Amino acid sequence: MKEDVFERSLAMHREMKGKLNVECRKNIENMGDLSLVYTPGVAEPCRAIVRDENELWNVTIKNNLVAVITDGSAVLGLGDIGPAASLPVMEGKSCLFKRFAGIDSIPLAVSTKDVDEFVDTVSKIAVSFGGINLEDISAPRCFEIERRLQEKLDIPVFHDDQHGTAVIALAAYKNALRLTGRSLEDSVLVINGAGAAGTSIARYFLSAGVKNIIMCDINGALCDGYPDGLNPAQVELAKITNPEHRRGTLAEVIKGADAFLGVSRPGLLTGDMVRTMAKSPVVFAMANPTPEIFPDEALAAGAAVVATGRSDFPNQVNNCLGFPGIFRGALDVRARRINEEMKLAASEALASLVSDAELSSEYIIPSALDERVVPAVAAAVAKAARETGVARI
Amino acid sequence: MKEDVFERSLAMHREMKGKLNVECRKNIENMGDLSLVYTPGVAEPCRAIVRDENELWNVTIKNNLVAVITDGSAVLGLGDIGPAASLPVMEGKSCLFKRFAGIDSIPLAVSTKDVDEFVDTVSKIAVSFGGINLEDISAPRCFEIERRLQEKLDIPVFHDDQHGTAVIALAAYKNALRLTGRSLEDSVLVINGAGAAGTSIARYFLSAGVKNIIMCDINGALCDGYPDGLNPAQVELAKITNPEHRRGTLAEVIKGADAFLGVSRPGLLTGDMVRTMAKSPVVFAMANPTPEIFPDEALAAGAAVVATGRSDFPNQVNNCLGFPGIFRGALDVRARRINEEMKLAASEALASLVSDAELSSEYIIPSALDERVVPAVAAAVAKAARETGVARI
Repeated sequence: MKEDVFERSLAMHREMKGKLNVECRKNIENMGDLSLVYTPGVAEPCRAIVRDENELWNVTIKNNLVAVITDGSAVLGLGDIGPAASLPVMEGKSCLFKRFAGIDSIPLAVSTKDVDEFVDTVSKIAVSFGGINLEDISAPRCFEIERRLQEKLDIPVFHDDQHGTAVIALAAYKNALRLTGRSLEDSVLVINGAGAAGTSIARYFLSAGVKNIIMCDINGALCDGYPDGLNPAQVELAKITNPEHRRGTLAEVIKGADAFLGVSRPGLLTGDMVRTMAKSPVVFAMANPTPEIFPDEALAAGAAVVATGRSDFPNQVNNCLGFPGIFRGALDVRARRINEEMKLAASEALASLVSDAELSSEYIIPSALDERVVPAVAAAVAKAARETGVARI
Repeated sequence: MKEDVFERSLAMHREMKGKLNVECRKNIENMGDLSLVYTPGVAEPCRAIVRDENELWNVTIKNNLVAVITDGSAVLGLGDIGPAASLPVMEGKSCLFKRFAGIDSIPLAVSTKDVDEFVDTVSKIAVSFGGINLEDISAPRCFEIERRLQEKLDIPVFHDDQHGTAVIALAAYKNALRLTGRSLEDSVLVINGAGAAGTSIARYFLSAGVKNIIMCDINGALCDGYPDGLNPAQVELAKITNPEHRRGTLAEVIKGADAFLGVSRPGLLTGDMVRTMAKSPVVFAMANPTPEIFPDEALAAGAAVVATGRSDFPNQVNNCLGFPGIFRGALDVRARRINEEMKLAASEALASLVSDAELSSEYIIPSALDERVVPAVAAAVAKAARETGVARI
């Protein structure tokens, strides 16, 4: 990762003074235009909504508007830098929504660390949005925030750091297993890092059919006798993972495993550990920007396929493969939520874009710039939404 | 007012499905662009804000972003239609911000009628904005909301229904007095309608130097013995207006007055009342869309000049003359608030655009589409902000 990407980005941000433009779709040339866009004409769309609140979807940007909302508590690898400093990331996310899926989106930072206050604030300003993308909120608060907001609101509330990564990782995992002749059900997977992303990936992989997941955090495998205090989400996770009740450090429990998935920290997986795994293991080293193990070292130690979060190696698990198509599909059918079926459909659509003929150790997941991705994911998500009864149209 | 403006506006809103586009200013063509707009590069502008929170103004859209915020409690002439139904108006306002002043703005509706909750919600999401335009909030709640938000926040909080109209009305009033050879100090002005707009206009005109204002509401002149209960804002107003302690209905107190300014209801001023006013009186009949008296009737009864809120008569007191330039000027100097001096500077700039040679009974205020308006108002507001110490740059 060249250091000067940071300098160039800062220079670009200073020159542009922010990355978003809000434009009016209607040219206002004369008083006639003004009378349609604003008073007196605008009274009529207002009255239409009074008569039928569903009209909100027809006469305002709600049908294509997503709020990107954070509290700045877990921003990139920077940690708890607060709401103000998180805003360049949120604006960037809004740029991606537009670039990849044609979705209008606005960045909002909420200045509170209190879960009740956060939920209350967001639910009070939600009416104009067709969806809410929660971003960069620390665990375990993010779980409760997402759950409570989704209970209150009848639009999708989606914490991308949890589910986006999980959806794409599952697509890549399916293809890695296809490549190495394994099945979801029989694969033994060690996930390292039991934060928001790791927890969500584990739950999601279980719902997709993976049976044997061992979650590791800093003190080793999550289990009943885990040495340090587990948070409630981790306690729940310990109950539904690790069916063989394995104990010990990552180096101990990874022995014989088919696959490693890291959402943890640089360098935590060594070549020696890879050598103790099952033959031709799968390694997803997704710590950003420096992975748990570099691809060349993992491959030299026998890995059959390596994925990372980086664009300068093959098989990038890039969030841009997920949220744009997922929200596009959800908005297209005015979905009330993004349920498990919709996410699974997104993973399958993403995995299916790689044909058997194309599948290789260097190509298990499409590029973020592959134009087929968003339409394929959106169509699959919309279909699943309709089939599960959460679509309005 | 042709009825079909309503039908055409509704059809336009349905066809456009909302009036705003959010665009990314940076073309994202490849992974290099992505790495500047989003991860990993975006970490550097975040770190810049961590080092110095003022950088927020340089690297995000805060420097040009205004939130248009309502609770939907007093929308146009439609009344308390609620947050959802108010959104077409808020989007329209955002369109005007861009069209007239190049300001990016986003519409937000807050789903609460409770003042504490409203203030709390807005203050928790304010960090990304360079200013807050409150819109269509009912009196007297709007006064407290604005005051408390401005106390909490270090960006301008401006309730346009109060101050915007007041700023433009003062500009028009100054020129009407110039035309009829009167002075602010000596003019006797009856204001009909003691809601948000009327109250704010009265206070503002007093601060501009008008000495003799008689406020009327539905039961006549505000005074100590006003028959019905006055709200706290009206009690305060009764103390600082009506220096001659006049009592009675509008028809009674308007006798001999130099000027009438209505922000009330259709037809409340009659030709007979105008005939009892001082010679060549000034009539501002600003009820929307149907004025307190139509211009032809007022002129036939002796009025020297008539202004309304409508674009199909001369002398439109159009809000588009105010808020775009006021916010443009405030944002240009990153003002902490919009104070009285900045508003008075805006009024004076607006009035000065009409030269002595141009001034006539049909031209006391520039057109909303006059390209000179926003630059002139913005420059005057920015200058006043710097002189009064509320500018950051």
